Amino acid sequence: MPNIYDISERSGVSIATVSRVLNGSPKVSEATKNKVLAVMDELGYTPNVFARGLGLNTMNTVGIMCSDSSDPFLANAVYYLEQNLRKHGYDSFLCCTGYELQNKKNYLELILTKRVDGLILVGSSLLEPNDEDNLYIKEAASHVPVMLMNGVLKGAGIYSVVCDDCGAVSSVTERLIKSGRKRILYLYTAESGSGLQKLKGYKEALKANGIKCDKDLIRLLPCDIENTRHLLSGLYTSGLRFDAVVCSEDRLAVGAIKAAKDMGLSIPGDLQVVGYNNSLLALCTDPELTSIDNHVETLSATAVKCLTDVFQGKRIPAKTIIQNALVQRETTRFQ
Amino acid sequence: MPNIYDISERSGVSIATVSRVLNGSPKVSEATKNKVLAVMDELGYTPNVFARGLGLNTMNTVGIMCSDSSDPFLANAVYYLEQNLRKHGYDSFLCCTGYELQNKKNYLELILTKRVDGLILVGSSLLEPNDEDNLYIKEAASHVPVMLMNGVLKGAGIYSVVCDDCGAVSSVTERLIKSGRKRILYLYTAESGSGLQKLKGYKEALKANGIKCDKDLIRLLPCDIENTRHLLSGLYTSGLRFDAVVCSEDRLAVGAIKAAKDMGLSIPGDLQVVGYNNSLLALCTDPELTSIDNHVETLSATAVKCLTDVFQGKRIPAKTIIQNALVQRETTRFQ
Repeated sequence: MPNIYDISERSGVSIATVSRVLNGSPKVSEATKNKVLAVMDELGYTPNVFARGLGLNTMNTVGIMCSDSSDPFLANAVYYLEQNLRKHGYDSFLCCTGYELQNKKNYLELILTKRVDGLILVGSSLLEPNDEDNLYIKEAASHVPVMLMNGVLKGAGIYSVVCDDCGAVSSVTERLIKSGRKRILYLYTAESGSGLQKLKGYKEALKANGIKCDKDLIRLLPCDIENTRHLLSGLYTSGLRFDAVVCSEDRLAVGAIKAAKDMGLSIPGDLQVVGYNNSLLALCTDPELTSIDNHVETLSATAVKCLTDVFQGKRIPAKTIIQNALVQRETTRFQ
Repeated sequence: MPNIYDISERSGVSIATVSRVLNGSPKVSEATKNKVLAVMDELGYTPNVFARGLGLNTMNTVGIMCSDSSDPFLANAVYYLEQNLRKHGYDSFLCCTGYELQNKKNYLELILTKRVDGLILVGSSLLEPNDEDNLYIKEAASHVPVMLMNGVLKGAGIYSVVCDDCGAVSSVTERLIKSGRKRILYLYTAESGSGLQKLKGYKEALKANGIKCDKDLIRLLPCDIENTRHLLSGLYTSGLRFDAVVCSEDRLAVGAIKAAKDMGLSIPGDLQVVGYNNSLLALCTDPELTSIDNHVETLSATAVKCLTDVFQGKRIPAKTIIQNALVQRETTRFQ
């Protein structure tokens, strides 16, 4: 089945021009328009299945929603999404919804009134734990395709690109165990979809290696450097012992590195530390932080590729999984 | 002159409801609508000067443009803008334009087709050095008010909220001089409006203290930790001496701290280091980084306050200046 790229190549005009023809833009000359339409006819091209009629409803615009652009992972995701959408000839705009359900609903409604070709929802915190509260997303998917980045929701017209958070944490925990660590502290910040996947990975690795899960070694805490530092120092002072820390976010790991210094523990000798997100923070600490990279660039590029495939009427899987990678620096020493 | 808050208070309904009445929303009951209209009549309220007719053109939506949401300063700004706009009853959406002029123009055009009440342009890199290239912004300001955050452009309907970058760098450079430092390296990343203001501050402080400006001590470089680290180590090895480093961005300062370690220099004894933006990175380094805080939260809140004042027909100054503050940590020791 031919797509917009084939039309562009065969007719010798840019994708933007093909899209202008589809949109009935007056900026295209009559000659160019006729040439493009002739190629479409020749190749048997059917425009975007979501555009009703000859593309007159397509705006070449995608709406993006994220809960909090000040989160470095989400901010990077938004940046790469925009770049990739532009490469594919799509404009985008972003709504930062915050964490309240009613605001998410209002923003989704707002975006739909702006006539977009599709929606990208970034970050698992956009999904509510109670499935009923996500009905408005399913409703939106009956109008335009919805792409979830790092979240999974079943429904017609809903697609997901996720990273393997569970596998990544399981794998690094296993490596810590193999390097001789027995009391591995797990720190996490949220019981969102991806937060729970990471925790699951930690527990799976312990189980697979015959280590009993100690509830004292699993801590849910705010995403804050100083708070983590004080919590860990406090735990240590009160007698709790641990020889490694796996964190669901780099900020927690920075706090752990500072706490180790307070407690007089050497890194990685006495304490190995692993962060998550491979953010800029990992390069600022001394020693530099080993961190799980969720490949936000690949994740974003894949989300855009899948969504534009849907626009072109291609079939894509409902869920695409991206593998994470461990970036080893100075806070770990694996055998 | 009464505004939307007065109407809300007097009629005992929320600002959102007043705004729905202004927008002719069908969600408001006839009784409430009549009450609100009666209060408007009583107080002699004139709606938003930019809404043509009885607010039927106001969408309670503001468009935001920024060049790069992956920049931590811009990402935080966008976050606080959204929060503040929502408090004032406005939705917002963001377009990340990248750095190319043509893309900026396209996005601005896109935003205007979405019917917004106003525009906020975030970051001085949105403005082009050549004034002619900014004509499209002046043109936009003839349709809706334009608020520049950290940029200045003269024109009807254009307003600015800026931080005093020049004053902040001048003041910290002066304090380094007073604490006995004579060879102060200045590192910066961009010759944007705010980049040049910071450089000006550095030069002014040297001049005011009778220190000759040494061109070898002023370096324009990419915004990258490792690159800065290598540059400084290289300069030191080649014989250049410096006893303080002032940076236009925290990432450069992180590189400087790492370079000091490579060179065997103690901080702050041999080398004092100052960053800019007071980002999370400043809390991750060891020693922790002294940094200039440009109060992105205040800057954003002020930008929104000014813009909503304009919506309500109030007169505001074309330029509002926010004072920065120095957050002292472990990389400086002032007398």
